[in-house]
Amino acid sequence: MLPFRVFRGSVKSLKRFLWTVETKGDEVVLKEDDKEELRFPHVWLRDNCQCPSCFHRTSNSRIIDIEQFDFDTSPTDVLLKDSCLLVSWPDSHHSRYSLPWLLARQFTPHNQHDWLDSYKPLPRSWTAYQFKQILQRYQYQNILNSDEVLLQWLKSLSVEGVALVEGAGTKTGRLQPLADRVAFLKQTYYGETFTVKAKPGATNVAYLSGSLQLHTDLPYYHYKPGVNMLHCIVQGSWGGGESQLVDGLSVCEWLREEHPHHYWILSTVPVVWEDRVVEGGRHYHAIHRAPVICEEAGEVVRINWSQVQRGSHFPVPIDQVTAWYRALQMFITRVHDQQSRVFYKLNPGEILTFNNMRVLHGRSTYEGDRHLEGGYIDWDFVYSRIRVLSNVSES
Amino acid sequence: MLPFRVFRGSVKSLKRFLWTVETKGDEVVLKEDDKEELRFPHVWLRDNCQCPSCFHRTSNSRIIDIEQFDFDTSPTDVLLKDSCLLVSWPDSHHSRYSLPWLLARQFTPHNQHDWLDSYKPLPRSWTAYQFKQILQRYQYQNILNSDEVLLQWLKSLSVEGVALVEGAGTKTGRLQPLADRVAFLKQTYYGETFTVKAKPGATNVAYLSGSLQLHTDLPYYHYKPGVNMLHCIVQGSWGGGESQLVDGLSVCEWLREEHPHHYWILSTVPVVWEDRVVEGGRHYHAIHRAPVICEEAGEVVRINWSQVQRGSHFPVPIDQVTAWYRALQMFITRVHDQQSRVFYKLNPGEILTFNNMRVLHGRSTYEGDRHLEGGYIDWDFVYSRIRVLSNVSES
Repeated sequence: MLPFRVFRGSVKSLKRFLWTVETKGDEVVLKEDDKEELRFPHVWLRDNCQCPSCFHRTSNSRIIDIEQFDFDTSPTDVLLKDSCLLVSWPDSHHSRYSLPWLLARQFTPHNQHDWLDSYKPLPRSWTAYQFKQILQRYQYQNILNSDEVLLQWLKSLSVEGVALVEGAGTKTGRLQPLADRVAFLKQTYYGETFTVKAKPGATNVAYLSGSLQLHTDLPYYHYKPGVNMLHCIVQGSWGGGESQLVDGLSVCEWLREEHPHHYWILSTVPVVWEDRVVEGGRHYHAIHRAPVICEEAGEVVRINWSQVQRGSHFPVPIDQVTAWYRALQMFITRVHDQQSRVFYKLNPGEILTFNNMRVLHGRSTYEGDRHLEGGYIDWDFVYSRIRVLSNVSES
Repeated sequence: MLPFRVFRGSVKSLKRFLWTVETKGDEVVLKEDDKEELRFPHVWLRDNCQCPSCFHRTSNSRIIDIEQFDFDTSPTDVLLKDSCLLVSWPDSHHSRYSLPWLLARQFTPHNQHDWLDSYKPLPRSWTAYQFKQILQRYQYQNILNSDEVLLQWLKSLSVEGVALVEGAGTKTGRLQPLADRVAFLKQTYYGETFTVKAKPGATNVAYLSGSLQLHTDLPYYHYKPGVNMLHCIVQGSWGGGESQLVDGLSVCEWLREEHPHHYWILSTVPVVWEDRVVEGGRHYHAIHRAPVICEEAGEVVRINWSQVQRGSHFPVPIDQVTAWYRALQMFITRVHDQQSRVFYKLNPGEILTFNNMRVLHGRSTYEGDRHLEGGYIDWDFVYSRIRVLSNVSES
């Protein structure tokens, strides 16, 4: 490493504020007038050099060879010029960073919070009492024709986790064009789309005419589908057939607040989710072992619940088994009470779309004909489309 | 809850051992001669009643209505008869569990370990020195024609995380039949299969003729592809083009043992993995924020590494940034040293298959023609196929 030296410089930026720059320890420090210092580690700056031999513009890729990278490098010179930070390195390499580019990456909590919110819109929970207010309705043709409406629909799915699409008609095949606006339908072993109506000899209880208990779809997949779309083709005028919806996120927040020990049990004790079926003449045996509530960095990111596809194997210490049922009782009671559960009878031509990571859905018993077509889209592609449509791609 | 009562019974099982049964506290206790007690919580037994009104055999589904479920129930009678446990409940419901079914679900550590190993074969790490010994080779046609060979190939992928498929010929389209033997190809926005050869104006550095640094594919997907298949169609006789492979699991084990602090940093500090591309005329902007090393319950379940698709945004406290680069330096040094890195030049007609969750792959610079076709299968379906072919489905 070179001996430590301090370089100073200043520039009037485009906004005519006075910026200064210096190196301090292993960081470059930028300062605008008397505002807080903006610190950028040397190693991060060298790693993110934007010159053509370090960054391939066409593919938006860092092409510095990490095997040869000098993790201990420090600038030999820093300078502000033309609203850019210019850095010289000991190996005679020169880097240039525009101030707006640097400011978008500053290591300050408020800037980082803004970026985290823009990269994935933050979810907001709701109770049954709030359902009518939060439920947004979108016209099928408008989603197909307007990027702005498409963006609003996807944001509703991200934030509230549920949205209604109207005017889709009563023919099958209407989910594919919706998914194409985002990316493509997710394939499962039930196919790209699936038909929900009473079938004799069904290998999935969804295909019976009885009630369907509140659940999330396919918890036995490690890669559980992200967004669920249920298109109502036929809904008999006889009784029943209402869809039931619960915001599991809201239930989790309540449980964490009111019964933290039960929350802890449900978010740590792994359960076996299991599906054994024959589809298209082939046998499948899917298992995913995970808690009912899955957290990442303290946030609920996935809720697994399916009474019918919960395995009978429960490989945890026996004392956890009893504790788990106690915690589950609390969860189940809250899921089914009037604060949580919404009843909504879909009309033909409507598509109920919701976040399969957090929203539980079910169905009341029905008589007569009922026919839904279902399909899935994964969140990777929903968020990607939101970013592209929100123009956050360039910052 | 009913007053606590103890019932006793005994039966000679099929194997002619003497079994006894009694209830103790909130558990039913089975005992074979003087062996250890096998305990089954009352609530678990009731929850897993196998009678036709509690369990739908055709769909392998629990159909007990959880909303009405009595979490506090206790047997009024227990009895062993004809190698079955018979339980009567206060609501006059009767349950019958076969002893083999119960024994397969016993809450003892050794039984649970066996089940966990059978539900997902446990991985074994390897170093570069062991590569020749651990690399299993399979004939393409044998995988298509023989369930036994198919199973062995999938087990190699699960345990060693790498296997070579030979004799696939030099036409494209050979990955689809392989994937069909398991389930189907995973679709990404690069398509169901992708072509790796030098393309002008490439939007992904894989499509240049330079070296391709060691990486895992698509870390910017939350649903990163599970198994990677690279079919060599053309490999020029000019220099270069060797594939490079590293068992990231082995690197992680070394890091955890030798440099636990660096391991902790790499397994907790989230990094931005990012891809901005135009494919098929459409813009995508994928981001996944996760550590380099992802753990679940103390096990490494996913390694994210791609120098080229690591974002310049790094929204963590600035002190973690410098610490992260220090830890990365250690990881990168180990990845590239001779204990870890394997060079293998694929021959036309060979398909390199490996676990994209743990194996890093790369390519040396080449001259002349080179053409690979790539495709993915997800682990949900690989494990499902292993279970079906291993006949573990019925236990």
